[in-house]
Amino acid sequence: MRTSIATVCLSGTLDEKLRAAAQAGFDGVEIFEQDLIVSPDSPEAIAAQAAELGLTLDLFQPFRDFEGVDEEQFGANLARVEAKFRLMKRLGMDTMLLCSNVGTATIGDDGIVVEQLRRLGDLAERYGIDVAYEALAWGRFVSEYDRAWDLVKAADHPRIGTCLDSFHILSRGTDLSRIAEIPGEKIFFLQLADAPALSMDVLSWSRHHRVFPGEGAWDLTDFLTRVALTGYAGPVSLEVFNDSFRQADTQRTAVDGLRSLRWLEAATADRVADRGAATGAGSTGTAAVTDGPSEQDDPGQVHLDLQRLPEVAEPRGVDYVELDTDDLGALTRQIHQLGFRFVGFHRTKPHVQLWRRGQARIVVTESTSTDAMSVDPAVSTAPSSSAISTSSAPGTSADVATAPIGSGTHLRGIGFAVADADAAMDRAILLQATEVPRDQAHDEEILRGVFAPDGSEVFFGDGTGVDPTWTEEFGNVPDDRRSAIDHVNLAQPAHHYDEAVLFYTSLLALHAQASNDVPSPSGLVRSQVMASSDGAIRMPLNLAPRSAESSATGDYPEHVALACDDIFTAAATAVSRGLDFLPVPENYYEDLEARFDLMPELLQRLQENNILYDRDDRGEFLHFYTSTIGSVFFEMVERRNDYQGYGAPNAPVRLAAQHRRNTGR
Amino acid sequence: MRTSIATVCLSGTLDEKLRAAAQAGFDGVEIFEQDLIVSPDSPEAIAAQAAELGLTLDLFQPFRDFEGVDEEQFGANLARVEAKFRLMKRLGMDTMLLCSNVGTATIGDDGIVVEQLRRLGDLAERYGIDVAYEALAWGRFVSEYDRAWDLVKAADHPRIGTCLDSFHILSRGTDLSRIAEIPGEKIFFLQLADAPALSMDVLSWSRHHRVFPGEGAWDLTDFLTRVALTGYAGPVSLEVFNDSFRQADTQRTAVDGLRSLRWLEAATADRVADRGAATGAGSTGTAAVTDGPSEQDDPGQVHLDLQRLPEVAEPRGVDYVELDTDDLGALTRQIHQLGFRFVGFHRTKPHVQLWRRGQARIVVTESTSTDAMSVDPAVSTAPSSSAISTSSAPGTSADVATAPIGSGTHLRGIGFAVADADAAMDRAILLQATEVPRDQAHDEEILRGVFAPDGSEVFFGDGTGVDPTWTEEFGNVPDDRRSAIDHVNLAQPAHHYDEAVLFYTSLLALHAQASNDVPSPSGLVRSQVMASSDGAIRMPLNLAPRSAESSATGDYPEHVALACDDIFTAAATAVSRGLDFLPVPENYYEDLEARFDLMPELLQRLQENNILYDRDDRGEFLHFYTSTIGSVFFEMVERRNDYQGYGAPNAPVRLAAQHRRNTGR
Repeated sequence: MRTSIATVCLSGTLDEKLRAAAQAGFDGVEIFEQDLIVSPDSPEAIAAQAAELGLTLDLFQPFRDFEGVDEEQFGANLARVEAKFRLMKRLGMDTMLLCSNVGTATIGDDGIVVEQLRRLGDLAERYGIDVAYEALAWGRFVSEYDRAWDLVKAADHPRIGTCLDSFHILSRGTDLSRIAEIPGEKIFFLQLADAPALSMDVLSWSRHHRVFPGEGAWDLTDFLTRVALTGYAGPVSLEVFNDSFRQADTQRTAVDGLRSLRWLEAATADRVADRGAATGAGSTGTAAVTDGPSEQDDPGQVHLDLQRLPEVAEPRGVDYVELDTDDLGALTRQIHQLGFRFVGFHRTKPHVQLWRRGQARIVVTESTSTDAMSVDPAVSTAPSSSAISTSSAPGTSADVATAPIGSGTHLRGIGFAVADADAAMDRAILLQATEVPRDQAHDEEILRGVFAPDGSEVFFGDGTGVDPTWTEEFGNVPDDRRSAIDHVNLAQPAHHYDEAVLFYTSLLALHAQASNDVPSPSGLVRSQVMASSDGAIRMPLNLAPRSAESSATGDYPEHVALACDDIFTAAATAVSRGLDFLPVPENYYEDLEARFDLMPELLQRLQENNILYDRDDRGEFLHFYTSTIGSVFFEMVERRNDYQGYGAPNAPVRLAAQHRRNTGR
Repeated sequence: MRTSIATVCLSGTLDEKLRAAAQAGFDGVEIFEQDLIVSPDSPEAIAAQAAELGLTLDLFQPFRDFEGVDEEQFGANLARVEAKFRLMKRLGMDTMLLCSNVGTATIGDDGIVVEQLRRLGDLAERYGIDVAYEALAWGRFVSEYDRAWDLVKAADHPRIGTCLDSFHILSRGTDLSRIAEIPGEKIFFLQLADAPALSMDVLSWSRHHRVFPGEGAWDLTDFLTRVALTGYAGPVSLEVFNDSFRQADTQRTAVDGLRSLRWLEAATADRVADRGAATGAGSTGTAAVTDGPSEQDDPGQVHLDLQRLPEVAEPRGVDYVELDTDDLGALTRQIHQLGFRFVGFHRTKPHVQLWRRGQARIVVTESTSTDAMSVDPAVSTAPSSSAISTSSAPGTSADVATAPIGSGTHLRGIGFAVADADAAMDRAILLQATEVPRDQAHDEEILRGVFAPDGSEVFFGDGTGVDPTWTEEFGNVPDDRRSAIDHVNLAQPAHHYDEAVLFYTSLLALHAQASNDVPSPSGLVRSQVMASSDGAIRMPLNLAPRSAESSATGDYPEHVALACDDIFTAAATAVSRGLDFLPVPENYYEDLEARFDLMPELLQRLQENNILYDRDDRGEFLHFYTSTIGSVFFEMVERRNDYQGYGAPNAPVRLAAQHRRNTGR
């Protein structure tokens, strides 16, 4: 599958955009005209640079407000488009995007529009240029892909084809079945974008909120499958207008974009194969394809060369969470207060130790040493460190030396138990993730991992998450208590939230749940849970507000939540060992009493132990928080029956208490 | 007029919110329940703190999902509301907000809802509490203010009244005429919010995009006038949910909010008086009131004590722009290249000099000295400095000493010519602006000014902007060239954009034009023009993206645009004096040729001089830019015929060129 990206997706100058696209591995780019106009480089120089970088220049875009005008205006438009044809020849380009007229069209008559498209085709023929006509969702007379196709079909000109753009089609909820009517060779270009489900005017939605496939709410796999089945063989290109991407690092956005296409390509390959199998068996009615095109006779006509990726299933569990600390005493004391048992030091890495509570494992690494689970990542090509959390970036000794005591405590990474760690790692690398450099003794289990968008490390281990074999390197302490890591709450840097969603979706087969906003004293915290279907993996991703406070402290805390069977026993242990609970206001319990019909004894026990409470139709949730060390704190949770949430109504209580502690008020 | 603000408008803890509201000068607050729940202070302690601060606790809010339910659910709801009544008594509060049911209502029958409201009234009576029933715009059965009023009227209970919220009413575009039917004493509370004109679902619009009156698109003066004419005498309160306000400094937001109410109060006083005059004259058909309530017989029933402010007309012109610099040579050389003439040094302030080009005046202050037009503002209570532009904050010698050469050049302030400088200053102070401290020699003209939200200084001078008398302090150089300051382009710090719009609206009677987004290599720049009706004052406010680049350089440049009669003559002078023009790419001129039918000679002259071009239905715009010194650059503009814009299509060309220079690419 040939991959392409519109330069408008990326920040920076045209020069920077071309370099980033090539470095990420795209085959080509769409030249967004505005990027060319503001460039100091001549068209010939741009063409030469692209050739040198190995990029094809796939589409010149956009040409606007052409058809459906009176003859005088049409003459002016022909002169205008001819100037662009000449420019395209200097760039060595042969495909132009023509958007349906939004501004100047006064004529909706099909006959006139068809005639104007045909005359455009004649002019384009003289320059050897193909014109791809696209229905903008807010076009004056043409706003649906099938109407654009009807016009193109009627124009019946070899130089006039259509361009399909998933945004303009899916945003209107148009019936997709007529895609199957379009011969692949008349689809001159294909643009893909995903988008979150928003209810707003489609123009603003399009201009500000598009995201890469896999980062939004739409089924792009179905869309691409339908297009693939037409026999389309051209580039599959990203066209995304996104306020955040425009501000983000050019190179990272390009990598994020290519990851989305590689992931989509593999998913589409699977979907097409499913369909082929179904059709080959003489059945078009299986569940896998009933939503897809069903009247196509020849699934063999797919000309997109769709590459698969090594398959990964959802992780089976969390093997461990690794914390770095420059205050070993404070951190391990808190872990002990939560009922963890010390397992041992790593047999060859004396600054690395393991603690466990049932199947909840925490690897603690003293960060003044250099013999962590992985080597010093400061020399690696890790993504740049988090903008909101200095601590979520891999720390160095130098950093720690100048920071306050304890501030070097942060969440370094998470180990996931997967069915096939090698396959997961191969897939991750093919999806452009950067491997964590790591020293490996010969007799040790090989653990490999990659950097997540927030700079934390994701490690893959074979197994089920129960007593993994690598723990033998720390010695062995049996612990059959029923406890595990319930969820890990991560802070995400600004401008990389969507990238994180795609990262965990594409590498770990996690699913994005609906996002919501949680009020804190410094602003709304956007929160979105990435989880596996069975709940074995739960990771709320939080995007903290960029307030004066958070930028001043450079810190938004992350946390590890531990599941237990009996929160009151856990609390009693913690009390007896002197845990510094995060205090819960009395007002909270009075409100709880008004909201839920709780037994007075239960209410009193909750309050005495700073335990918060939530309930839904399926069960109950009881939990308490610890104080924060560095940028990490802990939560102990007990889920009763089938409660599936995270106590979201209680999050503002926690955030306010942490705010008061942070600010000393 | 008693002023109030909902605690949800402000960032921080309840304690911080109460202090900020009191310090800004509010009479009372609405207690947003969530703020109370997360507070460690008891209701009694909160009541005591409010009393000590001189704040009344005006409204407990919100109580949700009460009415329109079956009898079993209703019993539970009564128990829930009674718990809140008890809480309110501990707070010493006597008014509760009841929102129309959005979640649990199953019964739309008026009779049942009325009966439930009546039973609520009976319970409320036992606690001496008034309940203000409000129609949420997305209520299940009740979403219009007049329907809520019909239900309240039918309930006919002394403890049940209605609450009017401008957002819920204006967002739906409901006919306002029925407000006049509601007796003032049955309006138990009044909440005000403005909002930008957005087309999105009303819930998201409400939760994220409300702004203070005067900062959005609605006519709140008309709305408040209508409510005032009912005889309403209670608090006028702000309830604004805004993502940016939630992240902004608590105290500044409170000041911004009170300014909005003071401004609105004065405008409403004028409107009511106009109406009274019209009605008194026996006419209800004058233009001033035709949009207002017209069937009211007794305009004398206004019980809100509406205070006027000293009136200001729109400024007549810009007297001067003041620039601070630590590189006097570079800055004055550039000014000279633009055709400015040196007028002289200030007679008592040797580090302050004046340059002029016709009626365009620039005061240049060497910032290593302490004898600027104003005294060192580092000792003042100025708003905290700009988050995006260190240079727009008043500089100090210490700052400059450690910064790179030239980086201390910034726009310090603007002098406005107004009809009555004393009135303008009095009004500014009543609107909570902070005065710029200033040394004043006895024989010098008294110029007074205040700090704008971006930290720049706004000075008021009597006159018309033509040869103001204070210029005599610099000596006098006649200059009858037709040149003036066309516009000044200011950068605004994040989270204070709306505050800036209200500041210039309320203090200087400027008008906000439609905002638009301009693409730059580092993201979209939000731009909104504040202008006077005759165009004598034009100030585009820009909110730069918070990209890696802009936060790294801490700098988004501001600029001064100079109007001239003949851009080619100005360019020739500049060329002869060696001006460093901002270069314009050749690609731009090729596109210009395709877009406009320009004479080849004109096109060539434009290109030779790096002059950009724009045209609209009314005229033409020719302009060039200089390089940037510190955070300031200049633009020379020639407006032909009646062109009213700012060459917005050319802004991306400028931003890209500046990006290349900034990044050295």
